[in-house]
Amino acid sequence: MSKWCRIARDSGPTYALVEGEGDEAEVTFLRRAPFDGFETTGVRRPLAGLTLLPPVTPPNFYAAGLNYAAHIDWANAYHGMALKLPTQADIGYRSANALVGSGGDIVIPKNSPGPIEFEGELVAVVGKRAKHLTEANALECIAGYTLGNDLSERAYQKSDRTLWRAKNIDTFKPMGPFVVGGIDPMAQMISVSVNGKLASEYSTSKMVFSLQHYLARMTEFVTLVPGDVIWLGCDGPTIPALVEGDVVAVSCPAIGVLSNRLVREA
Amino acid sequence: MSKWCRIARDSGPTYALVEGEGDEAEVTFLRRAPFDGFETTGVRRPLAGLTLLPPVTPPNFYAAGLNYAAHIDWANAYHGMALKLPTQADIGYRSANALVGSGGDIVIPKNSPGPIEFEGELVAVVGKRAKHLTEANALECIAGYTLGNDLSERAYQKSDRTLWRAKNIDTFKPMGPFVVGGIDPMAQMISVSVNGKLASEYSTSKMVFSLQHYLARMTEFVTLVPGDVIWLGCDGPTIPALVEGDVVAVSCPAIGVLSNRLVREA
Repeated sequence: MSKWCRIARDSGPTYALVEGEGDEAEVTFLRRAPFDGFETTGVRRPLAGLTLLPPVTPPNFYAAGLNYAAHIDWANAYHGMALKLPTQADIGYRSANALVGSGGDIVIPKNSPGPIEFEGELVAVVGKRAKHLTEANALECIAGYTLGNDLSERAYQKSDRTLWRAKNIDTFKPMGPFVVGGIDPMAQMISVSVNGKLASEYSTSKMVFSLQHYLARMTEFVTLVPGDVIWLGCDGPTIPALVEGDVVAVSCPAIGVLSNRLVREA
Repeated sequence: MSKWCRIARDSGPTYALVEGEGDEAEVTFLRRAPFDGFETTGVRRPLAGLTLLPPVTPPNFYAAGLNYAAHIDWANAYHGMALKLPTQADIGYRSANALVGSGGDIVIPKNSPGPIEFEGELVAVVGKRAKHLTEANALECIAGYTLGNDLSERAYQKSDRTLWRAKNIDTFKPMGPFVVGGIDPMAQMISVSVNGKLASEYSTSKMVFSLQHYLARMTEFVTLVPGDVIWLGCDGPTIPALVEGDVVAVSCPAIGVLSNRLVREA
């Protein structure tokens, strides 16, 4: 089971293999993206104190959006939305400007009325160029899995014609901390905590459309390329709303903890 | 007035300066992206016979979508849509997988019911990292302008929850041929021809929201980075519908001709 990340270094963003857990974790810097194997530099450092970047900068940034029934029911009841359970796997999009790594600040625009809500998600990272996949072979193109927080500014979500401000404000797409290979995307427990208190927990087994189904359907029409990411949606409630000073953490036992603090733009 | 493009070479995608017109045009290969000045290799070739790539691979791919009143009126009347004139400049998105250069084939998926329609657009190419622009200084971040054909599969546009198949099928976003600096984005004539016959012609002066306005509003929330593109929408009708064998060309006297043939996936 491989585990890797990307680190901000003076020489530029650097991929790194991750070994060990918690305070003992160490990274070994890699010469290139790990999609086609791991070529190490031999340079090893403690992970603590290093700055994590989003593990990839995706050429294409896909997001399932609505992919869990209980989340749709909750959003309709709580936010008075009129979301419907999707009848086909139509993928949506986010934008790379909004990415930030684990540990980076989420910066709330100074005039954002809010509420701002988390959406903790499993993220598939593409490792191979792929088109015309079948559900049976679809997962062969996936390099591994990470976590995403699809932060949403609900006032903008209601007022805007597109999701540009609801979803794609700078720093509103935390992603990380690590990419882990060899796990089952349909059998992961995802939880979200706010200031250390559990706020949401669900199993990815509840997806409306499996990752395999999404990949087969998407690649009927689009070519996936290494580094592309597919955010798979979230289940259940996405409250309490987040305010400056809060720390929001998305966790998956097999992957790690994606943790970010909210600050207000000066 | 600078004019540049990107060429497919054995050594990889290569930026190139363009000099001369028509059959006499020549390119000089550049060492790096031209956003911050032109460092030439001194290697000069006739443009004819070279393969044009999309002039950039955008880190973020923005699209205004609805930005001309006459196009909205036409789409509502002709397609029975219920589009409204936007009341604020909300930017949308396209995806880089769909890009193809001038001269490349547009490949219609084998089961696409159509109709497939052109949307010929002016495209702004970002040359500098930018946030918190004002309308007065907004154009300083723009490296130049190119053309885009925002091809649309109208059956998928009606049936899908998102625009992924309506707009982002592989090869459905031709972009090019050149990026030209120093022109006024609000005073360009854009025309579209199908098999050599004029199908649409409009002035960019009719934009609902100017590029300057879009840039100032967008950068209140998002950081633009070099290579980002902003497709500015189209005016008027977008017919005749396109079928395999057709050649569709988007033209602007100051920029050039973006020409692509449609083929059907085998």
